[in-house]
Amino acid sequence: MSYKNFPMVPRVIFGRGSFNQLSDIIAPKRLSINAPFIFLVDDVFKNKTWLTSRIPTSYDDRIIFISSKEEPKTSQVDELVEEIILKTKERPSGIIGIGGGTLLDLAKAVSIMITNEGETKNYQGWDLVKNPAIYHVGIPTISGTGAEVSRTTVLTGPERKLGINSDFTPFDQVILDSELTKDVPTEQWFYTGMDCYIHCIESLTGTYLNAFSQSYGEMALELCKEIFLEDSLTKTDAQEKLMMASWHGGMSIVYSQVGVAHAMSYGLSYLLGTKHGIGNCIVFNHLEEFYPDGVKLFKAMKKKHNIVLPKGICADLSDRELDIMIKISLSLEPLWENALGENWKKKITPKKLKELYQKM
Amino acid sequence: MSYKNFPMVPRVIFGRGSFNQLSDIIAPKRLSINAPFIFLVDDVFKNKTWLTSRIPTSYDDRIIFISSKEEPKTSQVDELVEEIILKTKERPSGIIGIGGGTLLDLAKAVSIMITNEGETKNYQGWDLVKNPAIYHVGIPTISGTGAEVSRTTVLTGPERKLGINSDFTPFDQVILDSELTKDVPTEQWFYTGMDCYIHCIESLTGTYLNAFSQSYGEMALELCKEIFLEDSLTKTDAQEKLMMASWHGGMSIVYSQVGVAHAMSYGLSYLLGTKHGIGNCIVFNHLEEFYPDGVKLFKAMKKKHNIVLPKGICADLSDRELDIMIKISLSLEPLWENALGENWKKKITPKKLKELYQKM
Repeated sequence: MSYKNFPMVPRVIFGRGSFNQLSDIIAPKRLSINAPFIFLVDDVFKNKTWLTSRIPTSYDDRIIFISSKEEPKTSQVDELVEEIILKTKERPSGIIGIGGGTLLDLAKAVSIMITNEGETKNYQGWDLVKNPAIYHVGIPTISGTGAEVSRTTVLTGPERKLGINSDFTPFDQVILDSELTKDVPTEQWFYTGMDCYIHCIESLTGTYLNAFSQSYGEMALELCKEIFLEDSLTKTDAQEKLMMASWHGGMSIVYSQVGVAHAMSYGLSYLLGTKHGIGNCIVFNHLEEFYPDGVKLFKAMKKKHNIVLPKGICADLSDRELDIMIKISLSLEPLWENALGENWKKKITPKKLKELYQKM
Repeated sequence: MSYKNFPMVPRVIFGRGSFNQLSDIIAPKRLSINAPFIFLVDDVFKNKTWLTSRIPTSYDDRIIFISSKEEPKTSQVDELVEEIILKTKERPSGIIGIGGGTLLDLAKAVSIMITNEGETKNYQGWDLVKNPAIYHVGIPTISGTGAEVSRTTVLTGPERKLGINSDFTPFDQVILDSELTKDVPTEQWFYTGMDCYIHCIESLTGTYLNAFSQSYGEMALELCKEIFLEDSLTKTDAQEKLMMASWHGGMSIVYSQVGVAHAMSYGLSYLLGTKHGIGNCIVFNHLEEFYPDGVKLFKAMKKKHNIVLPKGICADLSDRELDIMIKISLSLEPLWENALGENWKKKITPKKLKELYQKM
């Protein structure tokens, strides 16, 4: 038996308003005046001066606004890296991602691809990255994905949706400032928060579970229940606690894995471009068979917050399209093994998956 | 308001038997065949071949057995560093601490003092360390102190018991293998576990608390309750969970502080050499006034495990001796401020402390 030697984010700052310390934090990391910091920022913040005016740019530093309407792609990373290399005099001092899971994953991937040759798609998988990434900082502005703490960056490539899982992927620095999440619309808040909740259920009921993952998963789960089912928290407290739930949920899957919801949701993302958070919700809503208690609680949360999930998103799909989704989903073997045990292939078949997808 | 940018242990491995991976982990860190690894090992493991035979020594690597009967001292660190420098051809590749809080704190301090000039006592305080420590690994063999995760190494110096708190203090690598804790005697297990429990109570009831510390503290507290009050766990599960409780408890005080029990226990350690774990218990037992619920639960745990605390340890102390303890205790201002708020000086007086010490 060999255990993972897990890389943790080596620096973290937590606190309402801690975003103001970004300048002090990155200043010592500047390699030269010709080596800029590149800020990848969710374009929902364009013209939101309360945030943009506080991004500390100097010299040739650049802010690149990026839409998070679509899931991040390997080709998008390739384009970003090319344009960054072309427009900077020297290799950048660092990449700073400001946004949700999409922006954080892009920041991680760009920081890796600046020092690694070839195309991004070649690094999708486990431990394929050769060279350390450049310095990269994650600043979440929405909570739930766990992207701020994980050793993966999940990208949709030409052949699959799969993470670049490597010891060089985790951020060198994370800033947890819950104030940045204050304007997230309710639906987005719910879907992304549920990503954390679903992580936890998948981790806690999985066969890979150990005491490390369990303690983090239970903590995140308790926080989710408090945030999404009770009315006891102030807005600020709820934002701070969801930020911690996301962090702990991410830590929980370090030593375990996600499960059925993620495996099936990856299929939706790949074929239909469904965003990760809502995709997980659409799938999880139909997984009573695998996660009876978890789905029951999920439905209670959905009801409490008046969330209406899209229906029939697979209704018009051809058999060929369904097969593509099923293939993508079944290729995520560790997720199925975690969910259903070593003999998972006997328990889940393409036919079964097709029936499930057709309900969604 | 400025928040701490907290350094986390950048690598952690968790799992029963993961100690066997130590060789693979440190091999790439060897600087040359003349730059040995120095293993500082609790001398309770002398002749315990199940452990010592698995310490991977090569070339000039050395094992130094150290007693943990006494609290670690600054002078002890000075002596260790001198003897390591004298006996090695080149600066060591790393220091590996194997033991409880005492050994872990010694390993941290030695790794710092190999690269920093002068005497160890000069670095007791906050952020006084100038140069990065050499590579250092922490391998706890007893759970509770949180030393494996903290940015301090608490040492008794000629003038005070105080930590070397610095960004260079945390371990570069931690190995959490609960099997190493299997032979800890019951009393020691209880006292060290209660260090974690008391941390949590002090953190969760303190004025410095935030959502970060709270979530870690609550998780550790829940684990402590499960371990020390319920009978539902197997031995192995209880060992694994206590290891995680120690980890989370340590994380909890990152962003908060300990409180009255630690402040008073430092006085006992300084004057009487009382070990940290038992010292905390002796003090906490008399702190109903400050932590009514926490002390009640502590007494239930004590009863359940038939722990009899020493009594009257301060009975024969002179006024001068009591004054020394009181002075040491009151000098730990952040602990008092966390426990009692900004106006703590109005709430706790030397007279009050004297009365409390005399009960112990």
